[in-house]
Amino acid sequence: MDTKLSLVLFSGTDDKLNAAAVLTAGAAAIGRPVHLFLQYWALDAFRADRMGANHGLAPEAGPQGQAAVTALAAAGQAPWHETLRQAKELGEVEIQACSLSMDLLDINEADLDPLVDGVEGVTAFWLAAGEGQIAFI
Amino acid sequence: MDTKLSLVLFSGTDDKLNAAAVLTAGAAAIGRPVHLFLQYWALDAFRADRMGANHGLAPEAGPQGQAAVTALAAAGQAPWHETLRQAKELGEVEIQACSLSMDLLDINEADLDPLVDGVEGVTAFWLAAGEGQIAFI
Amino acid sequence: MDTKLSLVLFSGTDDKLNAAAVLTAGAAAIGRPVHLFLQYWALDAFRADRMGANHGLAPEAGPQGQAAVTALAAAGQAPWHETLRQAKELGEVEIQACSLSMDLLDINEADLDPLVDGVEGVTAFWLAAGEGQIAFI
Repeated sequence: MDTKLSLVLFSGTDDKLNAAAVLTAGAAAIGRPVHLFLQYWALDAFRADRMGANHGLAPEAGPQGQAAVTALAAAGQAPWHETLRQAKELGEVEIQACSLSMDLLDINEADLDPLVDGVEGVTAFWLAAGEGQIAFI
Repeated sequence: MDTKLSLVLFSGTDDKLNAAAVLTAGAAAIGRPVHLFLQYWALDAFRADRMGANHGLAPEAGPQGQAAVTALAAAGQAPWHETLRQAKELGEVEIQACSLSMDLLDINEADLDPLVDGVEGVTAFWLAAGEGQIAFI
Repeated sequence: MDTKLSLVLFSGTDDKLNAAAVLTAGAAAIGRPVHLFLQYWALDAFRADRMGANHGLAPEAGPQGQAAVTALAAAGQAPWHETLRQAKELGEVEIQACSLSMDLLDINEADLDPLVDGVEGVTAFWLAAGEGQIAFI
């Protein structure tokens, strides 16, 4: 089963980025091609100089949720960008930045972490997505 | 490739509405039929008397994100509802309000901007979505 | 049309959980198998001792949105877990907890409401999703 999976990453908080990374790694592990398209605050999190920073959590996490995430990180859980790096080694994972969001946030390709493979427009994203599965995170 | 794209719009902040509008316009531009289903705070943003208002951003945007969005709007970027209007002229885009959310927010069809084509229930949404692609934004 | 619908539930606020429950019930009502995969704050909301608690709303709801939700609940609207319970009686709805999120939040299977059918990993989720439709809520 090689249905393509195309994920639009919009949110830039560590919980959503981790959920996206784990879903990507799981899909790649069973041989599915995964295409990530970075928009808005998710794109911002892929700046080379901020990737390892604390990007916060969704507001609903609250202090208890924050404590749980902190404890798991302290126990050695891989951060989302490390999970994505492993997923790229393991399977077919492509990461593209949305050109409109690049303009919005005034980001150049050189500002992005090498995990990002390139920049594409929305039309190119849809053409690549084809008839596969999509999700917005 | 005419796979139908059905998007459930839940969030009513300007960044998510703009992401949804841009994804819609890109899909319509390559000939794909797009069906939007408005729930909760997204539906609220389609009230005729509020559509042009400032609907804020996701909390994670922060002051820097807000500044970027404000600067792009000042530079002439079309607002999300204008992008949707163009997408409807350009391609096959249908916008339906969720009947349950109409009740929740006490909205009548006359309160909605003419961009909205009608009101439908969740079952009608799924029947229209068929085997196409879906996303929740 | 029996295309499988697989929903990743990430958010644990009552508005998103209700949107997810209503979409699930509508799909189940037309005979579609639905598979829910609970991550992060959505999983937390399925703890047996908290399911009926107030889980708040998305920040964008504001006081007006909160008032609308409160009014509808007072008027007798079924809460999201009741809608899910009915959907399970009505159709083919399976609810699985994400094993990674169980670890993160230090939850045991005995802590979860009986609505949850079991615990599975991300790979199992993708294998079950197959070529059906997916969404992230």
